[in-house]
Amino acid sequence: MASEAPDGVHDPLPEPVRLRLDLAYDGTDFSGWASQPGRRTVQGVLEGTLATIAREPVVLTVAGRTDAGVHADAQVAHADVARASALLTDGTPSSTLIARLARLLPPDVRVRAVTPAPPGFDARFSALRRHYAYRVTTAPFGAEPLRARDTLRQPRAVDLDAMNAAGAGLLGEHDFAAFCRPRAGATTVRELQHLRWSPVDGEPDVIVARLSADAFCHSMVRSVVGALLLVGEGRRPVDWPASLLAERARSSSVPVVAAHGLRLTGVDYPCDADLAARAATTRRRRDGG
Amino acid sequence: MASEAPDGVHDPLPEPVRLRLDLAYDGTDFSGWASQPGRRTVQGVLEGTLATIAREPVVLTVAGRTDAGVHADAQVAHADVARASALLTDGTPSSTLIARLARLLPPDVRVRAVTPAPPGFDARFSALRRHYAYRVTTAPFGAEPLRARDTLRQPRAVDLDAMNAAGAGLLGEHDFAAFCRPRAGATTVRELQHLRWSPVDGEPDVIVARLSADAFCHSMVRSVVGALLLVGEGRRPVDWPASLLAERARSSSVPVVAAHGLRLTGVDYPCDADLAARAATTRRRRDGG
Repeated sequence: MASEAPDGVHDPLPEPVRLRLDLAYDGTDFSGWASQPGRRTVQGVLEGTLATIAREPVVLTVAGRTDAGVHADAQVAHADVARASALLTDGTPSSTLIARLARLLPPDVRVRAVTPAPPGFDARFSALRRHYAYRVTTAPFGAEPLRARDTLRQPRAVDLDAMNAAGAGLLGEHDFAAFCRPRAGATTVRELQHLRWSPVDGEPDVIVARLSADAFCHSMVRSVVGALLLVGEGRRPVDWPASLLAERARSSSVPVVAAHGLRLTGVDYPCDADLAARAATTRRRRDGG
Repeated sequence: MASEAPDGVHDPLPEPVRLRLDLAYDGTDFSGWASQPGRRTVQGVLEGTLATIAREPVVLTVAGRTDAGVHADAQVAHADVARASALLTDGTPSSTLIARLARLLPPDVRVRAVTPAPPGFDARFSALRRHYAYRVTTAPFGAEPLRARDTLRQPRAVDLDAMNAAGAGLLGEHDFAAFCRPRAGATTVRELQHLRWSPVDGEPDVIVARLSADAFCHSMVRSVVGALLLVGEGRRPVDWPASLLAERARSSSVPVVAAHGLRLTGVDYPCDADLAARAATTRRRRDGG
C-alpha cells in the first residue's frame, strides 16, 4: 500500500507504531471492557475517540479485561497506529494530546498517558502480574454516598484476622478452578502472590482486600473475596477457602461478590529487555487472561 | 387532640420529641437540599422515607441548605416527631433503625445516626459554624473517574502559596456581599474563621480548600474558590480578593465555580447548656443560612 502525495511522489505509509496507553475508568455505566455490539463498553468508547484523533481505526489490546461494573485505576492497553503523527510529536506524546482526550472523553474514562511502547511490548502478554483491590464497608448506614459506586455494603461485622489467615492459605501457585468461571481450553492454574485485607486510613468501617497474581481467571477475585467474607462472618472455618483448591471445577458454595467493589489497581511489566521473552512465555502457557 | 385507645381510655398524643439526624449525600442527582415540587431533592427523599417509618409526616430543618449538585459528608438536621416510638426504643435510637434506613434509602443519601436532640437544639439556628471543602484537580487528564463527581477539573496549573496568601486576606468578620448571591432582607456579614488550600495525601494533582465560617451566604464558598483560583493562575494579584470586601454588592468579576467540587464536611454546635441561647442569638442576627 502507498498513499498518493500531492506532488505525485509515492509515499510509503509509515510502519505502524505501537503505543502504550495508561487508563482509568469508573465501570458503573459500562458493560465491561470488551467491545460488544449495541453496548457502551470502555474499549468501544476509547477506540471511537482515539480513531477520531488518529484519523484511522484504532484497536486496543488490554492487560485486564474487566467485567461489567468493575473499575480501573491503572489499566494498560496497547494499539498499533499507522498515522502516529496525529498522536505523537517527534516520537513523543504531543503535549496537548492528553488534554484533548480529557475534553473529548466522558468523565468516567480517562487516558493518563500515551507513550511509544518499547520493542516487544504487549499490554496483555508481556504483563508480569495484575493488582486488584476490593472495597467493603461494614458501616451500619452503608457506604458513604460518594463511594457507593466502588464499595460493597457488608451488613454483618467481619473478623479481619480470620480473613487474612484464610487468605494466606490461598497464596502460591494453585489450580483455582473452584474460584473461576470456566473458559473452554483455558487453564485455571494461577500464582496468587499477595492477598491482604487491611483497614483504610481515615475511613472507619472500610476495609480493602489487595490481591496480586500473575493473572486472574474469570471472576477469581470476586470469588476469593466472597469466600473470605464468609470466613470473616464466622459462617465458614478459616481453612475452608484453601480446602477448595483441591476441587477441579467451580464450587457453587463460593459466592461471587458484586462487581462494583472491585478495581484493577496496577499492572507490572518486566524491564524492556525482557518484554518479548515474557510475551512468548505467556502465550505458550495460557490465554493470558 | 387525643387518640382513642382500644380500651376506650383517652390517651393524649405524646409530646413531640425532637430528633437530631446526621446525614451524608452525593448531590449529583439531587436538585439541592430543599424540597421543590416535581424535583428530586435530598429533603424530599429523606422526609418521604422517614414518614414511612414513623407513620406520620416528618419535616426536616437543616444546618446547611446545599444547592443542586453540592455534596455533604456530615450534614445535620432535626425533626419533631410525635410517634417517636417508631424510631426510638426507650428513648434511644432503635438498633435496627439505621440499618432499615440504609435499606430503604437510595445509595446517594445516608442517615448515619438518629439521636434525641438535647433541649434547645435547633439544627439551623444552634449551629456555631459550618465547614466546607472544595476539591480541585490540575491533572492534565482530568479527575480520577471515580472522583469525577466531586472534583473540579482545573486545566491550568495554580500557585498554592499565592492562593493561601490571598485567602488569608479574607479571614475575619466582613461583609462578603461581593461573594454572595443576594437574598432579600438578609445580611451578608459573615465571619470567615478558616480558609486553607492543601494538597491531598496519595492523590497527586489534587488540592482541597477547607473553609469554616459561622455561616456562609448563598454561593459564598464557590465564589471565594473562584476568586482564589484566578489568583492561583496568576490572572489576578494576591490582594485582589480582599479588595472586593469593600464592595457592597455581588461582583461580576468573581467566577462561581461548579457545584460538584463542593461538600459540607461538618457543623459545630455549642455544648448542650448553650444551645438555646445560641439559637436565640442567631435568630436575632440573621437568617442563619
